[in-house]
Amino acid sequence: MLPFARITIIGIGLIGSSIARAVRVEMPTVRLTGYDADPEVRGIADRLQLFDDVTDTAGAAVIDADLVILCVPVGAMGAVAAEIAADLPADAVVSDVGSCKEEVLRALTEALPGATIIPAHPVAGTERSGPEAGFATLFHKRWCIITPPEGADALAVERVSEFWRRLGAEVELMEPGHHDRVLAITSHLPHLIAYTIVGTASDMEEVTRSEVIKYSAGGFRDFTRIAASDPTMWRDVFLSNREAVLDMLQRFSEDLSALQRAIRWGKGDELFELFTKTRAIRRGIIEQGQDDPAPDFGRTHD
Amino acid sequence: MLPFARITIIGIGLIGSSIARAVRVEMPTVRLTGYDADPEVRGIADRLQLFDDVTDTAGAAVIDADLVILCVPVGAMGAVAAEIAADLPADAVVSDVGSCKEEVLRALTEALPGATIIPAHPVAGTERSGPEAGFATLFHKRWCIITPPEGADALAVERVSEFWRRLGAEVELMEPGHHDRVLAITSHLPHLIAYTIVGTASDMEEVTRSEVIKYSAGGFRDFTRIAASDPTMWRDVFLSNREAVLDMLQRFSEDLSALQRAIRWGKGDELFELFTKTRAIRRGIIEQGQDDPAPDFGRTHD
Repeated sequence: MLPFARITIIGIGLIGSSIARAVRVEMPTVRLTGYDADPEVRGIADRLQLFDDVTDTAGAAVIDADLVILCVPVGAMGAVAAEIAADLPADAVVSDVGSCKEEVLRALTEALPGATIIPAHPVAGTERSGPEAGFATLFHKRWCIITPPEGADALAVERVSEFWRRLGAEVELMEPGHHDRVLAITSHLPHLIAYTIVGTASDMEEVTRSEVIKYSAGGFRDFTRIAASDPTMWRDVFLSNREAVLDMLQRFSEDLSALQRAIRWGKGDELFELFTKTRAIRRGIIEQGQDDPAPDFGRTHD
Repeated sequence: MLPFARITIIGIGLIGSSIARAVRVEMPTVRLTGYDADPEVRGIADRLQLFDDVTDTAGAAVIDADLVILCVPVGAMGAVAAEIAADLPADAVVSDVGSCKEEVLRALTEALPGATIIPAHPVAGTERSGPEAGFATLFHKRWCIITPPEGADALAVERVSEFWRRLGAEVELMEPGHHDRVLAITSHLPHLIAYTIVGTASDMEEVTRSEVIKYSAGGFRDFTRIAASDPTMWRDVFLSNREAVLDMLQRFSEDLSALQRAIRWGKGDELFELFTKTRAIRRGIIEQGQDDPAPDFGRTHD
C-alpha cells in the first residue's frame, strides 16, 4: 500500500523535480501536483511533464493533497507555508527538504498551526539547479533524515519514512537541533569553505584567473563543484543555521591555525600525523557506499 | 624523432609508474629503466613489467640514461640526486615531477653541479599512491609546467617539452618562483584546507565519526578525496613551499573571517554576492576541459 496517494511539490528545482521524477518511477499511480513561484519554471515543468497538474497558485496546488513537500530555500519556507494555509486539507501531512531543521520547523509551525508537520532532509544533491537538473535516482542509497517535532503522530512519521524508502533512500530519525549540528560539519561548513577558497583564488592579483583555471587539476577544481551550488539556497542555509555554522567555523579556524604554525616552524611530524589520520575517513565513506570507489571520484581520464 | 631514447624513472609511485605506462604506449621503442628505494615496490614494478630493467641501486639505473626523471617526494630530491651523481652520464638531462620548483631546483643544482637540470611539474594525479595506482592516460589534456633555470639549454628544454607533449600533456614554461605561487593557491592550499576540515570533523565529540561518514554526501565527501593523498609527499610540499603557502593561507583566513562576520550579522547580500561570483570559475574549468562536465564530477548515481 502506498504511503500517500496525492502528492504536491512546491518549488520545482533540483530536489523538487527529482522527487517528482522518482515518484513517477517508483509510485506511478500517485497523483502529482506541482507549483513554483516562477512562471518560467512552471512552463518548463509542464513541458517536461513532471506532474499531472501544474497550478498557478500555491493554494490551488495543495487543495486535495495528502502530502505536501516544500522544496524551496529555507528562508522562504515560512512565506510559502502561509500561502497554502487556507487551502491545506486538515488531514494532509506537510514536509520539506530543507538543510536546516530547527528554523524550518519553527517557521512551519507558526504558519500552519494545527497541521501535521514532519520535516525531512534528503542528504543528496548536485551542483546543478532548476527543474531540468533533477533525476529519478538522486536519492538512491542516500540518507534521508526525518526530524519530527516532539509529540509527532507516529503514523505520519512512518508514512513519510516509507515515502523516502520507496524513493531508494535510507531513513534515519533525528532530533532537529542535533541534525543542524551534524549538517553544519558535514555539509554547511564544507560549502562555506569551498565558496571562500574559490573567492580567494579569484581575487588574486599576481596569479591570474586563467592560471587558476588551467592548473586547477592540482586540487582546486574539487572545491569549485560545491562552490557552484545555488546561491539563494546557501545564503539561507547559513543565515538559518547561524549558531551551529559559526561554532564549526571556529573549530576549523583553530585547527587551521595549528597547521599554519606547524608549517611555519617546520614541524613535519605533526603534518604527517594529521595527513595519515584523514585517510581513514575516506575509506569509511567508500565502504559505506557514500562515494564512488573509483579514484578521482570516477572522473573520466579519456 | 623521439626526444629521448633511454629513460630512467626513480621513484615508482603513482606518477613514476604512470609515466612508465604512458611511455610504453606512446614511445614503445624507448628503453625504460626504473628504481625505487623500497624493495617491495621494485618487486611490484617487476611483476607489472613496467620497465625493461629494474635496478637495485639508483646509480645503476642512470648509467646509460639520456633522461632521468626523479619522481620522489620533494624533500627527498636532494638525497636521490646525490645518490646518482657519480653515475650520471655527462649528456643526460635530469628532470623531476615535484610540486615545488624553487626548492627542488636548488637541491638538484647543489647535488649535481654541471648537470643539465630541467625541472617539470605535471599537474595531474589522483588520491591513490603506489605503483599499482598509475595509468597511462593520467597526463592526457593536463598541463605540465616546465621551470628551466636561468640560462638553461634551449634544446634540452624543448626535448623535455616534447617528451611531455608525447604523453598527452600541454606544456607551459614558467619561472620557478611564480610556479610555486600559482601552485600554492591551485593545489597546496586546497590540500591543506581539505586535510584540516577532515581532521576537524573527525575530532568532533557530539557528532560521531559514523554520522560524519553517513551524511558526507552533503558536501564533506568532496574534501575527503584529496585529504586521502600521500602523507609524505604532502608533508614535504608544505615544508618546501612554506612562504607561498603561508601567504595564501593568510589571504584565505582573512576572507573566511569576512564571511564569518557576514553570517554573524546576517548580511545575506554579501553572502549572495560571493556565492554568485564563484560559479563563473567552475564554468571556466569545465569549458577548458580541466574537469568532468557531468554533474557531481560524473559520479555514478546507480
